[in-house]
Amino acid sequence: MTSSTALLTDRYELTMVDAAIRAGTHDRRSVFEAFGRSLPAGRRYGVVAGTGRLLELIGDFRFQDAELEFLREQRVVSTPTLEWLANYRFSGTITGYREGEIYFPNSPILVVEASFAEGVLLETLILSVLNYDSSVAGAASRMVSAARGRPLAEMGSRRTGERSAVAAARAAYIAGFAATSNLEAGRTWGVPTMGTAAHAFTMLHDTEEEAFRAQVAALGAGTTLLVDTYDVAEGVRTAVRVAGPELGAVRLDSGDLLTLVSTVRAQLDELGNRDTKITVTNDLDEYTIAALAATPVDSFGVGTSVVTGSGSPAAGMVYKLVARQDSQGEWISVAKKSPEKATHGGRKHPVRLLDASGTASSETIYVGATAPAIVRGRTLHSALMTDGVADPAYTGGQGVEAARERRATALRELPAEAFRLAAGDPALPTVYVDAPTTRR
Amino acid sequence: MTSSTALLTDRYELTMVDAAIRAGTHDRRSVFEAFGRSLPAGRRYGVVAGTGRLLELIGDFRFQDAELEFLREQRVVSTPTLEWLANYRFSGTITGYREGEIYFPNSPILVVEASFAEGVLLETLILSVLNYDSSVAGAASRMVSAARGRPLAEMGSRRTGERSAVAAARAAYIAGFAATSNLEAGRTWGVPTMGTAAHAFTMLHDTEEEAFRAQVAALGAGTTLLVDTYDVAEGVRTAVRVAGPELGAVRLDSGDLLTLVSTVRAQLDELGNRDTKITVTNDLDEYTIAALAATPVDSFGVGTSVVTGSGSPAAGMVYKLVARQDSQGEWISVAKKSPEKATHGGRKHPVRLLDASGTASSETIYVGATAPAIVRGRTLHSALMTDGVADPAYTGGQGVEAARERRATALRELPAEAFRLAAGDPALPTVYVDAPTTRR
Repeated sequence: MTSSTALLTDRYELTMVDAAIRAGTHDRRSVFEAFGRSLPAGRRYGVVAGTGRLLELIGDFRFQDAELEFLREQRVVSTPTLEWLANYRFSGTITGYREGEIYFPNSPILVVEASFAEGVLLETLILSVLNYDSSVAGAASRMVSAARGRPLAEMGSRRTGERSAVAAARAAYIAGFAATSNLEAGRTWGVPTMGTAAHAFTMLHDTEEEAFRAQVAALGAGTTLLVDTYDVAEGVRTAVRVAGPELGAVRLDSGDLLTLVSTVRAQLDELGNRDTKITVTNDLDEYTIAALAATPVDSFGVGTSVVTGSGSPAAGMVYKLVARQDSQGEWISVAKKSPEKATHGGRKHPVRLLDASGTASSETIYVGATAPAIVRGRTLHSALMTDGVADPAYTGGQGVEAARERRATALRELPAEAFRLAAGDPALPTVYVDAPTTRR
Repeated sequence: MTSSTALLTDRYELTMVDAAIRAGTHDRRSVFEAFGRSLPAGRRYGVVAGTGRLLELIGDFRFQDAELEFLREQRVVSTPTLEWLANYRFSGTITGYREGEIYFPNSPILVVEASFAEGVLLETLILSVLNYDSSVAGAASRMVSAARGRPLAEMGSRRTGERSAVAAARAAYIAGFAATSNLEAGRTWGVPTMGTAAHAFTMLHDTEEEAFRAQVAALGAGTTLLVDTYDVAEGVRTAVRVAGPELGAVRLDSGDLLTLVSTVRAQLDELGNRDTKITVTNDLDEYTIAALAATPVDSFGVGTSVVTGSGSPAAGMVYKLVARQDSQGEWISVAKKSPEKATHGGRKHPVRLLDASGTASSETIYVGATAPAIVRGRTLHSALMTDGVADPAYTGGQGVEAARERRATALRELPAEAFRLAAGDPALPTVYVDAPTTRR
């Protein structure tokens, strides 16, 4: 697989550049904005994710010989455009919500300022990353709240594309998950990894006891034994007999967990294994996690629902031109007028207004040339990339850790209704405040 | 990004290998099977996709210094296991449904025969690829039927992870889509690419006419002009004025398409542009495509719904140990007994039985040592990889073309109810025929 990300894009981004170069309009300075018109169905808030890895992917967005040859052979663009692409390196500025920040409908999550051609080329890549990663983070964050302090592990690698799996593990960790099963996410992003054994390991051996002995010999008594391959009560007895009082945990991956967890807890206690924990992993989502929070469960493993955004596998973000220079170099706001897809033109300055107690009261978006003076609230835009250079605070493993911290902090500002699982309105209203002129 | 795929896996695959090596059970010959317990909600059939690229990814599943160093540092496995992994190269045999084949609940889509350790290591990667790609192909295939012969383009790259986007374009093409917007899918898999311009291109210019002139200058009059940035009727007039009678197509991306398509068709005809086509692209899925098939629309562009599997973003396949040698080298079938996750042990020989007219009547799965003699039907298993070497007929661009052809052919065998969009039972029943003994 090539490391260039330049063809991870829609063909029309390149034909637009081609036509603009021919028309002499490609160099008009432009402002593009990524935002979601609404939150995924009934959610109260969203979590921005993907920003850090996006900044790295933009650095790899270069057209090298192999990419240029493909474009030439397929006649995607003309020769002058091939020459322009050969020298392409994003040199613009990206301002936006920092990764882990909370967002609401129309929050201007990313603002790209560059020439039209430089900015439009990144559209597909920006949306692929933000839409998928924020979908996972938004779902994961609700699961973390539903678990009421018990740790969650992301185990859904097998339920999404093999590279999306790495992004999903990263996004779930940012949203408060404690660990992932995905090893590449451990290597690339420093996410803690976990996992012990599947049913196949039990079935490889002639008896469940033989399998448990093999696992304890390799991983120690503190391991987690999967006890539901055959009969749960028998599995628990065997696990305790093999691992003794030091047995770390038992895992339940089937059955009616609401009743089973209590039964197994009582059995473990009776056998003297009061410190042995119970982890559950059977097709959980935020609703079953909330229901299980009333049982003596100790931790959760979540697969399909978290890596597929729990019913909303794409966060619904779009990337729109909102301002540009005209042929005289004057800035003008632009907006699409088609009925259900109208956009709000102009450069935005978003602020999370806070009330006297420090609770967020609105997502207020000032539109205009300069940021307003804020009385009580947080400005939400930071410089993520300046003249093509990413701020290293937002990339790599340190970016992931900072994003995880940021999501936890930002969530504490939200009003109580933000944490309702039931479908409803966003927890904060989005309010536009237009400056007298939207020129900048 | 590293080209090794060896860490695109769950940690527990490695800890199981570690424990099995320590117990001396890792070399027991084993049969693993990938299958789905059911089809995605209410679907009548599934389409196998991902096989060809999976075979290539398995070839890159090697533990090199960087991977081994990570595993050592994180203490994932013991030193003897690190040595075993350093020499790991999958040397087993993979039999299965060829890509593009139709499948039903419990169809044994992929059968992996190898040592336990070699086979279990591939679980996560196999499922990631098959689950995502088959999810897209299953949804795409229904859209193709709903379009009743009109071509569809896959344009959903921005609505899924950036590498999943390439897989989605490939899977949709296998399922009968005509083209994709994704350039990397064009380069890597030979999928035809398409696309012209977005609203941003119109808004870059001072007038819609200026934008259309720029696009026609670069791409010719045969291009597709996007006419709904401001006012559709005005947009169509401008498009025809600029491009003349040779205008290839107009694209509608908003509004009530059911009425708009007819209005625009009438307007184009009145302006003398009877050969100018109409393409529509506004959040379509199989249901809106079916409804639009009654209008004078010429082609469809589909985004979110196809790359997210139209409500079922993971096909639900699992990978289970179904047979293994015991400590004496005797083959035994194994099966999990937990209530809702019971598996059917043993080596399978699936056959699509056909009636006298050549219409498929059942998915019959013979369980046992040898394949039965089939009176009327197709055996569904082919050798995809032998002793670690993939059959080149199934990989690369030629594998994609063959898979696309295969899906079309296999679909023609199905009974009429297979093409109903409404939720219902699978179009064929899955029938097990157990041999007197399941030893092989």
